[in-house]
Amino acid sequence: MASTKAALIVGAGDATGGAIARRFARGGYATCVTRRTLEKLQPLVAQIASEGGRAHAFASDARKEEEVVALVEQIESTVGPIEVLVFNIGANVPESILTETARKYFKVWEMACFSGFLNGREVARRMVARELPEGEHRGTIIFTGATASLRGGANFGAFSGAKMALRALAQSMARELGPRGIHVAHSIIDGAIDTEFIRTNFPERYALKAQDGILNPEHIADAYWMLHSQPRDAWTHELDLRPWSEKF
Amino acid sequence: MASTKAALIVGAGDATGGAIARRFARGGYATCVTRRTLEKLQPLVAQIASEGGRAHAFASDARKEEEVVALVEQIESTVGPIEVLVFNIGANVPESILTETARKYFKVWEMACFSGFLNGREVARRMVARELPEGEHRGTIIFTGATASLRGGANFGAFSGAKMALRALAQSMARELGPRGIHVAHSIIDGAIDTEFIRTNFPERYALKAQDGILNPEHIADAYWMLHSQPRDAWTHELDLRPWSEKF
Amino acid sequence: MASTKAALIVGAGDATGGAIARRFARGGYATCVTRRTLEKLQPLVAQIASEGGRAHAFASDARKEEEVVALVEQIESTVGPIEVLVFNIGANVPESILTETARKYFKVWEMACFSGFLNGREVARRMVARELPEGEHRGTIIFTGATASLRGGANFGAFSGAKMALRALAQSMARELGPRGIHVAHSIIDGAIDTEFIRTNFPERYALKAQDGILNPEHIADAYWMLHSQPRDAWTHELDLRPWSEKF
Amino acid sequence: MASTKAALIVGAGDATGGAIARRFARGGYATCVTRRTLEKLQPLVAQIASEGGRAHAFASDARKEEEVVALVEQIESTVGPIEVLVFNIGANVPESILTETARKYFKVWEMACFSGFLNGREVARRMVARELPEGEHRGTIIFTGATASLRGGANFGAFSGAKMALRALAQSMARELGPRGIHVAHSIIDGAIDTEFIRTNFPERYALKAQDGILNPEHIADAYWMLHSQPRDAWTHELDLRPWSEKF
Repeated sequence: MASTKAALIVGAGDATGGAIARRFARGGYATCVTRRTLEKLQPLVAQIASEGGRAHAFASDARKEEEVVALVEQIESTVGPIEVLVFNIGANVPESILTETARKYFKVWEMACFSGFLNGREVARRMVARELPEGEHRGTIIFTGATASLRGGANFGAFSGAKMALRALAQSMARELGPRGIHVAHSIIDGAIDTEFIRTNFPERYALKAQDGILNPEHIADAYWMLHSQPRDAWTHELDLRPWSEKF
Repeated sequence: MASTKAALIVGAGDATGGAIARRFARGGYATCVTRRTLEKLQPLVAQIASEGGRAHAFASDARKEEEVVALVEQIESTVGPIEVLVFNIGANVPESILTETARKYFKVWEMACFSGFLNGREVARRMVARELPEGEHRGTIIFTGATASLRGGANFGAFSGAKMALRALAQSMARELGPRGIHVAHSIIDGAIDTEFIRTNFPERYALKAQDGILNPEHIADAYWMLHSQPRDAWTHELDLRPWSEKF
Repeated sequence: MASTKAALIVGAGDATGGAIARRFARGGYATCVTRRTLEKLQPLVAQIASEGGRAHAFASDARKEEEVVALVEQIESTVGPIEVLVFNIGANVPESILTETARKYFKVWEMACFSGFLNGREVARRMVARELPEGEHRGTIIFTGATASLRGGANFGAFSGAKMALRALAQSMARELGPRGIHVAHSIIDGAIDTEFIRTNFPERYALKAQDGILNPEHIADAYWMLHSQPRDAWTHELDLRPWSEKF
Repeated sequence: MASTKAALIVGAGDATGGAIARRFARGGYATCVTRRTLEKLQPLVAQIASEGGRAHAFASDARKEEEVVALVEQIESTVGPIEVLVFNIGANVPESILTETARKYFKVWEMACFSGFLNGREVARRMVARELPEGEHRGTIIFTGATASLRGGANFGAFSGAKMALRALAQSMARELGPRGIHVAHSIIDGAIDTEFIRTNFPERYALKAQDGILNPEHIADAYWMLHSQPRDAWTHELDLRPWSEKF
């Protein structure tokens, strides 16, 4: 029964994570969404329920090993086997190398990379341990990347460092776990997304929405669902997504 | 009327090109397939017709400018506007640099790259010239790449040269034509495909088919259709496809 | 007076760091070498002195912000302005993603990347602040990379994550600080180095030394000196170094 | 006797090729320079002679197989064994994909890539065939690349195609010939060079020379000499060179 399988969306707090959660709920998954504080997740859970889906909210700090271990254990024992993990936490705060603080450099990495390691490892452990009929797809793990995953621009030492490290993790996991039946993928989101953050802080950028010049979170979610749905003889490891008008 | 729109598949002679043609025919396109000799295309045309699709075969040497110009003119005037171009010609013949002939080095480039330039340019000219309502998708151009598109392995000077040059073309066209509404994409097919060529020449490789260890042409075709179907706020430029068990 | 200028070699404990320190000492720099414990540096300091050079050893934990800040302050006030920084700390410990511990994943990053950030930032701050005649070279910062700086291999999630993040840092610093007169470079050491570690743990690999199949630390040092000596109209940002017989 | 060894500089017509020829002449090589027409090479030959070096000029069309074969044969039989090949022909003419002609697309590739293949192959054949004491360096082959070797920018389909194909050739030759004792390298010249062409056509760019903002051909030549001089345990395959102030 598809409805007993779980999809874990780590970093479901923004429009992108929310759209991904809703997409996998529509696909029949018991969607598990996490944030540090539970109450902010309630609107998303309610929306998924109103769309006929199934959602569970968990308060969990993705940077804390014990919390991640407990979260995965709780989902597996109370919801169902995790067949999908989407790691969607970002932390983009540009800063000159001359004024960057050690605290912030660490925190950006901890949020955008270390959390990805913790969640990826815990879920992968469960996936490989499962007894499955030969040839069955063991699951999908998707990490959300960015332009900074490919290059270190001026003032992006911390963010691109975390994002490049996350990309290294995705590559390493794909090479180890692909032959064990787990589809590990990494996206390159190259452009602004239609989020509250962009609307508030970059109104000129946001105005491009009128001509589809910023990414629609629903379309990112569709792309992630597509990745999950790929047959195992033709898996994509890295998927770039950008608006038609974006420079690259 | 979707049925009057044309999809041109250059290099439809193998299983991959055939599957792509059939996929776009199922999607409602009048599918135009080309080879140097017409008769070899008849089984594909018949198959598409038997599946309820519409196909047209053209004898055309993709390396000859005048033939490509005439082909595109003929399709546009007798079939319909070309909304999709898939360039799918390969030419993988490994050889030591010490024994590679000038003739073969040239021919590999002419087939795998120069043909792509000719066809890409001619179709792009038509696409940009069309009067379309603002915001409408002008069309999709997909170039088929390979592992050799990313690196020059020993004995692959000719093939990787042609493939890297084709990738450069795809990037250049995407950067120029994306902002004009044309989706230019490049695939990286990283693995053996289920073709007669592999079955005959690499039987050990072919045996991996039993466990989905080689690419199914139908799935490549589905991926190309997916690229064509992406909304313009979230286009993929480069898509890698490989079997789950492939080393990379 | 060249002799009052300082070169700081962080991670001078192995053969590579030692050779680099000796090379810059031969070039006239007061070479400052660091390790967590002072006594292990004494042979290197003695060797440099015996070769007519000038060396200073400092006990410093490169992962601790306050220690790095104090170290740079101490060198600048007691030795001379730091004109060269070489960051040479590695931490290559392969491990399956399934058994990797959070503690080790963090420590690898802390040593191989975070230390690079702390030392790079502190030295860069001094370099940009100096009053220099227009056109004068402000200094050189070199980060030592590895094959894992370019790709995440199976079982290399932690190491390649740290190394890719360090590469992002180097790129970001180069783009910000290059136009301010600081030459930031990153090396890709692609092969085994002639060190005690390789001799002990990989004797078969070490046997390649007879035919120059492993890197001589003196030659890495020469390459770093070359980078430092480049005129500012022709700077190299990334330099790969590998034995002639190495696969890549 | 070093003076009997030859260095062949293909594309010695501009300031860069000329500087490279003079550098290898200073290093003791009988420097062989080529262009399609002989007379334009006379000033360079005279300059090298006046600097105490030895130079030979040859009229040769680098795109014609028979001429390249004859040239290499002539040098080997009348001057000495070719120990160094520098391929330095470029052909940067930006053009929209929509207006690019087939003729020009072909010519750019023929000059910037096919010539490189012909010259590289002919010289490599001689190098591998030589009887040398075990461990002796068989020779160096350097291909000059550009920013376009790494990416296909808008309007650079032809040039980046040729340059990426040349890079593929360099990689393929390095992987095949490195283990046979031939050092194959590829440079990325990322910036304007101090040439007559830049002075005439891009005066604003040229004005950056006052602050070392364009590359000095002598420094490119020094870098190539450095590549040739590297010990075989620490070879560089790809070397980027750019002015300190260049954006990248």
